[in-house]
Amino acid sequence: MGPEAGTPGEEPLRRVPAGSAVLQELAAGERLVVVNTPGTQVVDCWAFVRDPEGGHAGEHMSMEHTRVELERVCPAVGDSLFSNRRRPVLTLVADTSPGVHDTTLAACDVHRYRRLGARGHHANCTDNLLAALASAGLRPDGVPCPFNLWENAPVRPDGTQRIRPPVSRPGDRVVLRAERDLRVVLSVCPQDLAPTNGAEGVPGDVHIAVEPARGAD
Amino acid sequence: MGPEAGTPGEEPLRRVPAGSAVLQELAAGERLVVVNTPGTQVVDCWAFVRDPEGGHAGEHMSMEHTRVELERVCPAVGDSLFSNRRRPVLTLVADTSPGVHDTTLAACDVHRYRRLGARGHHANCTDNLLAALASAGLRPDGVPCPFNLWENAPVRPDGTQRIRPPVSRPGDRVVLRAERDLRVVLSVCPQDLAPTNGAEGVPGDVHIAVEPARGAD
Repeated sequence: MGPEAGTPGEEPLRRVPAGSAVLQELAAGERLVVVNTPGTQVVDCWAFVRDPEGGHAGEHMSMEHTRVELERVCPAVGDSLFSNRRRPVLTLVADTSPGVHDTTLAACDVHRYRRLGARGHHANCTDNLLAALASAGLRPDGVPCPFNLWENAPVRPDGTQRIRPPVSRPGDRVVLRAERDLRVVLSVCPQDLAPTNGAEGVPGDVHIAVEPARGAD
Repeated sequence: MGPEAGTPGEEPLRRVPAGSAVLQELAAGERLVVVNTPGTQVVDCWAFVRDPEGGHAGEHMSMEHTRVELERVCPAVGDSLFSNRRRPVLTLVADTSPGVHDTTLAACDVHRYRRLGARGHHANCTDNLLAALASAGLRPDGVPCPFNLWENAPVRPDGTQRIRPPVSRPGDRVVLRAERDLRVVLSVCPQDLAPTNGAEGVPGDVHIAVEPARGAD
């Protein structure tokens, strides 16, 4: 996943293939750029606070704590996402997309695909997360609800909530600033049996970059 | 917490004091009745599947999985709540209240009260959960987002979500049927610094009962 030419942005972008995941360590102040290259791709995002010894600190980004703190179901530019100790973990500092993301839906897993009619194994974001952490010798305490970048599942006034194709466009990007030393896992959702990744259900590659810390925004 | 006279229902009701929690084991088919005695009290509810050896099976009621399965942000009568393995755990079989409950907000914790200005320790639902499980020699893998009975924090069309006083009335009750052998923890939320438990912020006692399994509903 080396730098690629012809892609926008100041930092070299690296490709994260459709259906796969990447673990990215960030130091406080660094920024993670996530580019929705095809425009229709949902990316599940988790963040775990690194303790000084390199393991888990028992603190992770939590959607249910974030909603309480923001009094919003989805963060907007300038909002932070909070941990299970109610401390800022990531801040959404830029978003070229219409800002439709989801904080409410579980990551896909083998059970989800079985219920959708898949036979045999199906790649899924939950296993992607566990494998990415295992590659660093880590095992989480449970699987937190992810921050689902570009997932379009609005809560309607009658309380219903259905997954629809993303409203983002090719090349839309978000920038997330680390508020502490983190391990971030991104899973390029392999969903192809629901319109999560577009009406055609075809997952695509995304691109990411890490930008160095800079002065106050 | 013995039976009390003068309370409605077929089974003896027992009191769960304001701010405290109770761990109730249920066998598949049994029903848990929860009475909102003051009408303004929120009750955080968790369920953990019992494995045949009596410990945790690694399976618990999950709000984020429930929302995916129901395609609704809040269950209605007849809906089941699902586990992190996408199996039904509890079914909401009756609800005399207007049906406003919450599945999206984290349980209160020491960090929440500190941010609300509390000094020193403040009773909270997260510690209540952990203490209730510890009394049975158990420790969960993380703290799942609770099913917040009667919590009134609707997601509005603009995505904002603020906690308002409950719309339930004194004596309103829900009935939850266990779909498998469970350990349910109920925490009578001690929140008194937000309108969670009414505009006055005064938590009150609730009452519960367990009804035996019966034929199909």
